[in-house]
This record gives sequence, structure tokens and C-alpha cells, in this order.
Amino acid sequence: MSQDHLDARRRQILDGARACFARYGYEGATVRRLEEATGLSRGAIFHHFRDKESLFLALAEDDALRMADVVARQGLVQVMRDLLSAPEPDADHPADWLGTRLEVSRRLRTDPEFRGRWAERSRQLTDATRQRLVRQREAGNLRDDVDIDVLTSFLELVLEGLVSHLAMGLPADDLEPVLDLVEESVRRHRRSG
Amino acid sequence: MSQDHLDARRRQILDGARACFARYGYEGATVRRLEEATGLSRGAIFHHFRDKESLFLALAEDDALRMADVVARQGLVQVMRDLLSAPEPDADHPADWLGTRLEVSRRLRTDPEFRGRWAERSRQLTDATRQRLVRQREAGNLRDDVDIDVLTSFLELVLEGLVSHLAMGLPADDLEPVLDLVEESVRRHRRSG
Repeated sequence: MSQDHLDARRRQILDGARACFARYGYEGATVRRLEEATGLSRGAIFHHFRDKESLFLALAEDDALRMADVVARQGLVQVMRDLLSAPEPDADHPADWLGTRLEVSRRLRTDPEFRGRWAERSRQLTDATRQRLVRQREAGNLRDDVDIDVLTSFLELVLEGLVSHLAMGLPADDLEPVLDLVEESVRRHRRSG
Repeated sequence: MSQDHLDARRRQILDGARACFARYGYEGATVRRLEEATGLSRGAIFHHFRDKESLFLALAEDDALRMADVVARQGLVQVMRDLLSAPEPDADHPADWLGTRLEVSRRLRTDPEFRGRWAERSRQLTDATRQRLVRQREAGNLRDDVDIDVLTSFLELVLEGLVSHLAMGLPADDLEPVLDLVEESVRRHRRSG
């Protein structure tokens, strides 16, 4: 197979697996269900990924890179707005980023070994957020009285709260103005004088 | 037994059970462990609480009331600062509010029936937060360009993020200045002119 074919096959597996993990959770995503979701045999799947754990980590990393890409272009608050406007997850529309992100959060809570393996992969989002804030400060859009690292941690804490809020099934229809407030809190203050 | 005795016994059970749930989680807190933690027999425990579920809900409600009391006097950001300064949970110092709160969050995620039973009890914290903000606005300490409900949801979202952050075992030693930023975001803006 050509590299293009290999890349397309890898993409096919990741997309199917994402839907499968979002729908059934990590433990519930059996090899049989992964075969159904990807339309490929277990032989084909595990030719590309060593085991289920490697597949899940590749997926989480893939999602983190895509989130980092949105962050680089539009900021972390836009990632949060995208989470809010995502359709209610159901069998036909399994939550996309949210599903993987929830599963990552849950495994971080319950699996100390996973914590170590995830740590190195989770830097991308933090780095992308920090770099975006640096550029925004250079452009004069950011408040300059608070350290970039503090603003980065603030935005990540709100994202974590939002993921948790959605995971608990709490109503989210009133959160748009909250995100406006979050965005405004990191922006340069309007001066009245 | 007198009412004072009954109240003291109820308090003894709640305090022991809080440590037990924080240490073993809801499922792991067996009746045998609850007996050990409270120093009372199962007969005595379930004379005061119908079953384990009722005991846990009473505990969660008791904690929510105590949190609401701190909120009424010092605000929700102070509750978050208390969470940060709590000692690392271990066998001798099981996390207090945090342990119960985490268990509530986990069960909200995984147990739809619990969600209904919890909803009516979780209003206290929201109500206390909103009332505190109303008083702060009357005292001229609060920004007046954002709705009280939006500020309440903002603070609750950050609290949820903090609980999740601590639950995932992520480092928390750099979060004090983040809470300063959160507090400042709901305060009246300093005017430069």
C-alpha cells in the first residue's frame, strides 16, 4: 500500500474508533464493536495500532492536535463555544471532541498509569493556548497586568469545568454569556478615561 | 435519648461516614467499613438513616449547607481557596468537602437516577452564591454590567473545573493567582479616569 493509502486507512480507523469510544466508553468499546465501527477486521486495525490502549491514545492525541489547531487560529474560548454548540450526543451523532475528552478525564481520575502516559500528550493544548495568548498580547488585544501562564491556567480551568458540566448532564443553554465573560476577562480592559 | 443526644449521634455518623466515603468511594464504603469509621453498629447507623444512599445524600446535603454558609459570609471564591489549601488527602486526612463533592460529581456522571435526587439538594449552593452576589452588588463591590445569574454560573463553572482538576491529580500549586483573576473578574472594574 502507498503512504496515501496507509494514511487514509489510519484516518478511517481513528474516525470509527472515535464514534465507538464516545458511544460505549473505553471499557465498552470491545474489539468486535471497533470492527463494526471502522468497517475493518481486527487484523487490519491492530496492524496500525498495537492495542486498544495505543489506539485510544492516538485518538486522544489526534483530537488534542485538532483542538490545538482551533486554539492557534481562534483561541481556547472558541473551542469551548464549539463544545456548547455541538449537537446533543446520541447514537447517530456521538459527541466528537467531548466524547474523547470525557473519557480522558475519567481515565485520568481512575487510572494513575494513564496519567503518566497522557501527560506528555496534553502539552500541545497548553502550548497552543499560551502561544495564542502571546500573539494576542503582542497585537495589543490582551490585558497586560496578568501573567500569560495565569491566563492560560484560567482558560484551561474553565474548559475543564465546562467538560465536567456537560458530562454531568447539567443544562448548558445559559452558558454563552458566561463564555463572553471569560473571554472579556483575559482581554485588554476598556478604559473609561 | 434526648434531642441533643440524637443530634450528637447523627453528627457522629455523618463525620465518620464522610471520612469513609472520601477514602473508599461510594461503592467501596461497605456497611462494615461504615461501622468502623463511625464506631457504631449498623443497627445504630440505620436507625438514623434509612440506607446507605440516604446517608450519602444527607452527607452531601450537610456539606452543601456548610459550603453555602461559607459562601454567604465569604463568597464562592473563598470556598475554592479552601479547596486549594486543603491538605493532600491520605488515610489520616481524607479530603473533607472535596471527597464528598468528587463522589457527587462522579455519581452525577454515571447514575441518571442520582441526578434527579441531587437536583433539589444542589440549589442551596447556587442560591447562596446568588444572594451573596446580590448583596455585593448593593454594597457597590460588584461589576454592574453583567447579570447576576451569569456571574453565578461563571463562579460555579470555575468551581467545577477546580474540583475536576484536583480529582485528576493535576498540580494545583499555581492556581492561587488564577482564583485572584476569577475574583477580580466579578468585581467592579477599577476606573482609570
